Order: sequence, then structure tokens, then C-alpha cells
Amino acid sequence: MSKIFRAGKTILASKVANKYTDEIKLLTSQLKTTPKLVGLLANDDPAAEMYASWTGKTAESLGFKYELIRVTKDQLEGEIYKCNENDSVNGIMVYFPVYGDSQDSYLQQCVTMEKDVEGLNFQYVSNMYHNIRYLDEAKTKKSILPCTPLAVVKILEYLGLYNPLLNYGDRLYGKTVTIVNRSEIVGRPLAALLANDGATVYSADVHDIQLYERGDGLTLKKHTVLECSKTLEECAKASDIVITGVPSPTYKFPTEYVKRGAVAINFSSHKNFNDDIKDVASLYVPSTGKVTITMLLRNLLRLMENSKK
Amino acid sequence: MSKIFRAGKTILASKVANKYTDEIKLLTSQLKTTPKLVGLLANDDPAAEMYASWTGKTAESLGFKYELIRVTKDQLEGEIYKCNENDSVNGIMVYFPVYGDSQDSYLQQCVTMEKDVEGLNFQYVSNMYHNIRYLDEAKTKKSILPCTPLAVVKILEYLGLYNPLLNYGDRLYGKTVTIVNRSEIVGRPLAALLANDGATVYSADVHDIQLYERGDGLTLKKHTVLECSKTLEECAKASDIVITGVPSPTYKFPTEYVKRGAVAINFSSHKNFNDDIKDVASLYVPSTGKVTITMLLRNLLRLMENSKK
Repeated sequence: MSKIFRAGKTILASKVANKYTDEIKLLTSQLKTTPKLVGLLANDDPAAEMYASWTGKTAESLGFKYELIRVTKDQLEGEIYKCNENDSVNGIMVYFPVYGDSQDSYLQQCVTMEKDVEGLNFQYVSNMYHNIRYLDEAKTKKSILPCTPLAVVKILEYLGLYNPLLNYGDRLYGKTVTIVNRSEIVGRPLAALLANDGATVYSADVHDIQLYERGDGLTLKKHTVLECSKTLEECAKASDIVITGVPSPTYKFPTEYVKRGAVAINFSSHKNFNDDIKDVASLYVPSTGKVTITMLLRNLLRLMENSKK
Repeated sequence: MSKIFRAGKTILASKVANKYTDEIKLLTSQLKTTPKLVGLLANDDPAAEMYASWTGKTAESLGFKYELIRVTKDQLEGEIYKCNENDSVNGIMVYFPVYGDSQDSYLQQCVTMEKDVEGLNFQYVSNMYHNIRYLDEAKTKKSILPCTPLAVVKILEYLGLYNPLLNYGDRLYGKTVTIVNRSEIVGRPLAALLANDGATVYSADVHDIQLYERGDGLTLKKHTVLECSKTLEECAKASDIVITGVPSPTYKFPTEYVKRGAVAINFSSHKNFNDDIKDVASLYVPSTGKVTITMLLRNLLRLMENSKK
């Protein structure tokens, strides 16, 4: 057998993140006070621990204060409210999962929207689904986007998947994407964001596959969701971009489903692709966490900006 | 073997609901317009269909207009927003589950709090957990309580479990309760409500059992949650009240776990107790739906009252 011709490249999230760090450093250096981010950790997940430690390092290197507060699950809600009321705290992030069920949705909403760096407050999420970009009619306060979906968008921009020759808001037109994850925190908002930008998106979870497309003439939602009878293999083979986010150490996306030359991005803290993905994908991004942290800090600055107006 | 001495009684929810119907009829008769409730149905669950049909009949018999709107899952969000903006609609209820995951939490929050008869808006739920009873400082607008937990409280009052000799807010003091269900819609708010009223509550779900007790000196939350190493059998045998809400046709709570003379209440649409519960329980309430509907209509009137102020 002949040697596989491997033209593809692995792109690390740190490289994408670097694009934003200078901008952020400049902004924090111009502030009168050092903005402070608090991380609330109520689980023992090593991935959350690592993510918390990264957040701290990155935040401090870019001109922020960072405090990690460890709490029990039952203390978490009270601690969130304390941080909401503490004027020295500018941003709050909670390391989920805590309970791993709908109680986490409740806890998310406890973070006041003025300090919600993750962009998970209902108002922000609802704005995102409806493609509403500002919080006020005068368009002075930008709505916050959920940071992991936003990070994936920024990665796709970096990788050249957004075509700048097309109009803003149409730049994924003609692209087909498969996303394996439909959580409310990442998978579903991401599907909506990419569909809003013109892509055809197959959104897969353990139950089914849905097709997200930009709807015409929809008054509120910019995207529409259709039932889809395709298999995951059919969807992936038709996709220019495959994005995985399965929170399991054993799950691996079958490399043979990926179209030669496609782009593969994994946002799970576990490696969802096998190593041989590099033989198939043109560009492979094994993790997205570092871009997410950068977006988190960018959101924090935006929240401070909004609070001034 | 001697014949079992059966002193217990089955109490139907309709009997409890009747206590509130006259009050509601009187209130609607005094209004200038007929208040309108819209039910949004996006699933084929026969239990939801039946519940929707009950809601309609009850609403109309008590002086309300009721419109059932059937939509696909994907149309639901748009329809909620239409109803939010439609001045002829006073109350909105969504028949859950729709997706059966965290997307349902999102959809719940789409209902504007001014029309949220189910009391599931984050602001209402958060007020309930923190025992905040009013929406305004002047205490003119009552916060809405989630209707199924509220229905169970009203049933417990009817059954005489709330002791009126004790101070308001202490009336479950000394009572031990086991609740099998810890959903954000019923089980967890119910555990909090009963703990806030002085009960010791074991809250069980498939993962674990938690102990809810009223905390002393807590600034925001009135209850505290502790880990619990007891088995379900131990909890139930120590309980004066056993409440089930398992959404499964096959689940049955083991009758032998129930203390002789205890009160048994099932809020699942499936029968979670075996028939022999009547040989053990002093009072048995096989379903709660009719009280829930009454509370829903009561909440609707309260929302209209709040909107006037």
C-alpha cells in the first residue's frame, strides 16, 4: 500500500487565541482598575479543574484578576448571589456540570446578566437564537454570545471557512456542517449561529439528527429546524466541517465518515477524534478551550463597557 | 391470616379542587372581560392530551376562555412569542415534556413572566427557593408559585398535615416527607417549599437521596440541602408523607416501605403506587392534576391582578 499523502494540518487553539490577546491586553491596560473574574468550582471533574487553572493563568497574563472559589454543590447558589452583589467582582463563571441535570440550568440563571461572562443568561441566549445583536434600541450595548459557540465561530473564521467576499451574515453560505452535541450550552446555540450565517447544519445527539437551516421570512428566529432522516454517516460524508463535543472518554467519531479534506473540530474536553483524523481532515483542531477562555475575557470587557452606558 | 383492617381512605384530587372553584368562579364573574388561557401542545403524549382536555373543561366551567394550540416542536418557540405579544391572551401554559432535555428549560423561559400561569419563570422559581413572596418592595404583587408543587401543598393542607396551631411558615414542623422525583418543575421546588414550612424532606431521584431542612440564619435560602446516606426504604419508613412523581408506567413504589398510617400522594400521570397502598396508607391521593389545574387558573387571576398595579 502506498503511503498516505497527508496534506492536512493540526491547528492548535492557542494559535487562534493569540489573534485576540493583543486586543484584550490593550483594552485592560487602558482601564483604571483591574477587572476581576471569579470562577466558581463545585465539582471534582479533573477537566473542570484544568480549565479553571487555564482560565486563571490566561486571565492574569492578560491583565485581569482571577479568583477561584471552591464550594460544595449546596453552597454554590449562595456564593453566586454573593458575587452578584459584590462590586469588586466584574465577571462570574461557574464550572459546569454541577448536578448534571436541569438544576444546572437553574443555577446558570442565578448569575446576574451584568456579570455573565459565559453568555448563558436567558436574555442573551434568546437574543442569540433570534439574531438580536443589541440589548437596547439605541444599539449601544452589545448582547453577549455564549462563549464556547462563539469560540468555534472564531476558529472557523481563522480557518478561512467564513468567506469575506460574501456579505456579513451570509459568509457560511454553501457550507455543510455536522455537529455531534445538542446541549443548550454549546451544540444547539452553535447550530443556530452557523445556520444564521448561511450554513446547512446537521445537529446530532444520542436521540436523533435535526437539520438547521436559515429560514426565509421568519420574523423572530433566523433559522428553522427540520426533521432529518439521514444517518450520521450520510450527514458527515456530506459535510465540509465536522464538529464534535461528546463528553465521554470512550466516544470516537468514525474517521471513515469524514470527507477527505473536511475540517474537523473537537470542543469536548475528551478527544473525540482518532489520531487518523489527520490522514483525512485538511484542518484539525483538537480542542477549543483556549479560544473559549479568550472569548470569556472579551465578554467580560464587553459587560464592563455595557455597564458604563 | 386475618383480614387486613383497612381504615384508610382514598381522596380524589377533584374533592380538594372543589374547595377553590367557588372562589375562582366568584372572581371571574366580577371581571369585565373573560380571561383567556392558551395551552400550547407540541407532543403526542396521551397524558398531556388528557391534561390539556381537562384544563379546557375546567377553565371553561370556571369562567375562562381556553384555546388549545397544537404546534410542531419547531413552531413552539415562535408561537410562545406570538402569545406573549397578543393582548387577548392572559395566560400561557406549555405541555411539557417537548424535547425532554434542557431545551425544555429554555422554552419555559420564553413565556413572558406576565403570562406564566405555571410559575416556572426563573424570577418566580428563584423567589420561591428564597422564600421571597412578593415581586415588589411595596408588597402589592404576589410572586407566582409553580403550580404542581403548590397543588401538593394545598392537598397536604386539605388532608390536615399542615397544623394550623403552629405559626404560619412552621406548620409542617415535626413532619418527615419522602419525595421520589427531583425535577426542577416539581420535585425540587416541592422539597424546598415543604422544608421552608418546617418539614424534614428526603428528596430522592435515580442518582441519590438528599435531605432538605430549614436552615437557621441563612440569608437567602430558607432551606439547606445535605447529603444523605440513608436508603430509600429507611427514608420512607421514617416518613409521615410519601410523595411520588416518577414518569414511568412500570415504576411502582414498594408498598412495604410505607409506614402504616402514612399519607401517600402521587403526582405522576402514571400510577406510582400499587393498589395495596390502600391497606397501609391512612390517606391516599392517586393523582393531583385537577388541583394543579385549579392552581393554574388561580395563578392566572393573580397575574391579571399584578398587571393592574
